[in-house]
This record gives sequence, C-alpha cells and structure tokens, in this order.
Amino acid sequence: MTAGDSQPSATAFVPGHITGFFSAHTATTCAQAGSRGAGITLTDGVEVTVSPGSGLRLNGETIEMLPVADVCTRLGVDAAVDATTSLPLGAGFGVSGALTLGTALAANTVFDCGKTENELITLAHCAEVDAGTGLGDVVAQARGGLPIRIDPGSPSHGRLDGLPARPQIEYVTFGEVSTETVLSGDTDELTRAGESALSHLLEWPTLDRFMTASREFAAEAGLVTDEVAAALDAVDEVGGDTGNDIDTGAAMAMLGNTVFATGEKLSAAGYDAHQCRVDAGGARLIDER
Amino acid sequence: MTAGDSQPSATAFVPGHITGFFSAHTATTCAQAGSRGAGITLTDGVEVTVSPGSGLRLNGETIEMLPVADVCTRLGVDAAVDATTSLPLGAGFGVSGALTLGTALAANTVFDCGKTENELITLAHCAEVDAGTGLGDVVAQARGGLPIRIDPGSPSHGRLDGLPARPQIEYVTFGEVSTETVLSGDTDELTRAGESALSHLLEWPTLDRFMTASREFAAEAGLVTDEVAAALDAVDEVGGDTGNDIDTGAAMAMLGNTVFATGEKLSAAGYDAHQCRVDAGGARLIDER
Repeated sequence: MTAGDSQPSATAFVPGHITGFFSAHTATTCAQAGSRGAGITLTDGVEVTVSPGSGLRLNGETIEMLPVADVCTRLGVDAAVDATTSLPLGAGFGVSGALTLGTALAANTVFDCGKTENELITLAHCAEVDAGTGLGDVVAQARGGLPIRIDPGSPSHGRLDGLPARPQIEYVTFGEVSTETVLSGDTDELTRAGESALSHLLEWPTLDRFMTASREFAAEAGLVTDEVAAALDAVDEVGGDTGNDIDTGAAMAMLGNTVFATGEKLSAAGYDAHQCRVDAGGARLIDER
Repeated sequence: MTAGDSQPSATAFVPGHITGFFSAHTATTCAQAGSRGAGITLTDGVEVTVSPGSGLRLNGETIEMLPVADVCTRLGVDAAVDATTSLPLGAGFGVSGALTLGTALAANTVFDCGKTENELITLAHCAEVDAGTGLGDVVAQARGGLPIRIDPGSPSHGRLDGLPARPQIEYVTFGEVSTETVLSGDTDELTRAGESALSHLLEWPTLDRFMTASREFAAEAGLVTDEVAAALDAVDEVGGDTGNDIDTGAAMAMLGNTVFATGEKLSAAGYDAHQCRVDAGGARLIDER
C-alpha cells in the first residue's frame, strides 16, 4: 500500500500467458475445474492498480469484465481498477486472467484482506472459470516461466510443473477468437488432442518438444485460421534446419488468432513481430517503497 | 546453453533464503522429508555457471560441498561449477541450497538431461536433505517471494503458499551457525515452537504477523546469540511505534548468526546493514541469448 497518499493504492504485474495446447476439465467446484496443458508466460503483461472506488479501466477506457467484478465481490471490497497493457484483448494472451488475478493481488493489499497468495489465485481462478473466460491462465500466470498444468484446478487441487528454459519469444496477432464460444462448444476433440500433446511433452519435457506438440495440437483441434496457417508456413520456410534445437518453427496461441515462436523466426519470415522474453517471476505485487 | 562457444555453459540465479521459523520433519524418503515454516527469498542470491569438467568454485575459491557433488552424480554428469555470491556461507541465507539448486538447473541445460523444473527441485532437495545441510531452502528458493512451507518435502509431496507482499529487506550477519549441528541435535523443542509459529501466521497471513512469529520462534527455540539479541533490542528501541504496520521490528535468520528486518530499521539502529528486496521470481536460468 502506498503510504502518505490520501487514497491508498497498490499495483500488481501479471505476465501475459500463451497456451500452446490444453484439455478442458469440468468439475463440481470451480476450484477443481480447469485445464491441463502447457504454455509460456511473457514479460509483456498487465499492470493493475487498485484503489477504493468503482469501475474498471483498461488503457484509459472504461470496460466491463465479469471476473474482475466477481473477484471484488468475493473479497467484499469496492475497488476502482486501472490497468495498462500492450497486449491485445481476446487474442490468446490471457488478458482477462491477468486483470482478474492482478485485481485480487492488489485489492488484498489495499483493503488489508489478509489472504495468502494461494487464496487469491483460487479466487481469481474461480472467477474466470465461472465467467467462462478462462480455465488455466490464472494458475499459469501466478507461476511464471513455462508452466505445465499437470492436473487442473486451483492451487489446493491442481498441480503445476515447468520447463527449465528462458528463450526469447516473438508473436504476431491477427485479431480475436472468442474463448467463451470455443469453451462453450463441444470440447471433446480439443481435449483428446490436448491430452495427447501433454503425454508427448512429458515423454521428453523440453522447449523443442513443447513447440512441436503445440503445432500438432492446433492442427488436430481444427482451430488454425488462414492468417495463422500462412504465418506457420512462412516460419517453416525461413526456419528450415538451423541446427539450433531451441528454434523449432512457430505455433498458434490458444485461444487467439495469434502465432508465436522462439528466437526471431517471425521477424526473419518478414512479420512485424512483438519481441519479449519468458517471464521468470509470475504474478507479483510491484515493490513497495 | 550458450551457442558458438567451444565449451557449452549455462547460468542460473538462485535467490538467498532467510527462514524466520521452521519445524523439522523426517520421513522414509528424502523427497517426503523436509520442513514446515516461512521465510523470505532475497534479490541477493547466487549465480551458478555450469560447464563440462569438475570441481566447485565459490567466488573464485575451490570448495567442496557434498550436495552439489551429489546433484551431479544423480544427473550422471561431470560438471565444473563456478558460482559467485555476495552472501556469506553458513549464516542463514541458504547458500548451500542455492548452489545445489543452481547446479541442477544449469547442468540440466548444459548436458541436455530433459528434466522438468519439479524433477530438478526434487534432486536438489534430496541432495540437501541427505547431506544434512538443509530441509526447506531449496523448495522455498525455487518458488521465490515470501514462501510458506505448509507441508514438508519436494514438489510432489510438499505444499507451498506465499505472503503477498514485497517489502524492502535489511540484514546484518555476525558469523556462522552450523546447520548440520543444530539439525542433528534434538529438534523436538524447535519443532514445537515452529508448529506454533506457523499456526499463528496462518491465522492472519501478513508480513507483520510473519515478523512477530519469527521473533517469538527465535526466543522459544533458544537460539538467540548475544550479537543477535543486541541487534533485536536496538531495532526495538529505534522502531517503537512508527504507525507503519509493515515495519515490525527485527527477527533472527534460521540458522545463522544473522538479523533481518523490513524497511530500514537496522540502518536506523546504527548497523551497517545490507539492503535488498524480496525476490519475486524464484530460481531461474538466466535468459538465453
């Protein structure tokens, strides 16, 4: 909490999260529901500042987002949430999860709620699951690195591991895909492909294998758009056999009309790609003064 | 792995870890053994570089450390380990845990061992437990932040939570306490005091309560040295009632002849204290180029 101001406030940073592949898992409680899969957390993320008041602003514009309001209700606080990000909404970067988790972390500080990190992650995870806006972003964003969701759900139920690697990441995005629409449809095919991709990764848990499994998942799940297909092909063409085993082509961000790659493959393929790194820390309060 | 060099190498950073209180828990396997308790991970830590070869150097001097050698044996690799740190050995900062975990993370990259982060944490935790050099540092250092060890053991058995706060930290150290000597003695009294401190913290999991519980633990466990007692008193005298609830006096690092405090209380009490922050990220490979 910032001391000395008339209005107390706190700020949290939450990394963006690209899912490479996943399987959806329903359960009787929101804390047990979630997804298995693997992804990448990004140094590009969302900064969320909370103070007493009301309303949610993202990059200066007032928006409504059900899970953010839900977290405030669950904490029993009246919070004004002001967030900034360079990441696009609805393009597979977990921005809704970041807003929700960041609100939980910062509001706990401002309103002295006395929750632990696991309790705040669970609140945010449940708010996302209940709103249908995400299944695994929150727990991955809380962890940082290259999270593997071994078992679904919040910290008391789920189980996470990680890939020990810290490559550079590039991404390019072509627009929105609605998470709600995909997740509310028939996810059986997705889940079969996701379970298969996870088994494939766990046989040899390396970055190389993660990229390959993600690429296969997108094809099997039938979610590849024309723009994504063109970008994947373009990276394959320039990528070829570089002899560098950490650069294994590109894959699609789930769920977004977005392509990501390690190294600088998208730039090499002529795309005006964003560059960032793997976020090592996971969601965190920004240092108190 | 650094590309282009004749000798491949990788570097990991592992934060220092100060334990405020703990209870020791034995078990039939090293992965299940460990400690419960709470502590602070520090932006002051250990950088560990691994390349093919042999031997361990810390700040340029050749040393021997059983758990580091053990990790290399468990991974089946011949590694030269070169580490640097500003933290003192044997003073309660988890330097042996940091060397062990950093070696596991970096060696996995150099020798392409294909382990996950949890597997590497388990290897390092077991090496520390078997050597008697630590019970909970490795899992805390892997997590970062202000880790609460809810259940003892490696990732597949233990359970961690965290305090959502990021204060400034000061510390001052007066010399060594042997972890092996304390842990190999009668730990019943320690464990009763540690269990009580953890219950006290979990009733209201805040930084303020952590400092209070740590201070009580040191007194009950009978480990306070004369230098530590003098520093704790000095901070109490200048600290008084500042009205700032994140600055609640000082406590003793377990196990070291070391005092730590939030804010700048040790400086205010006239000590030439080191200043750092809470490490948000936990142990990590340093970004690949």
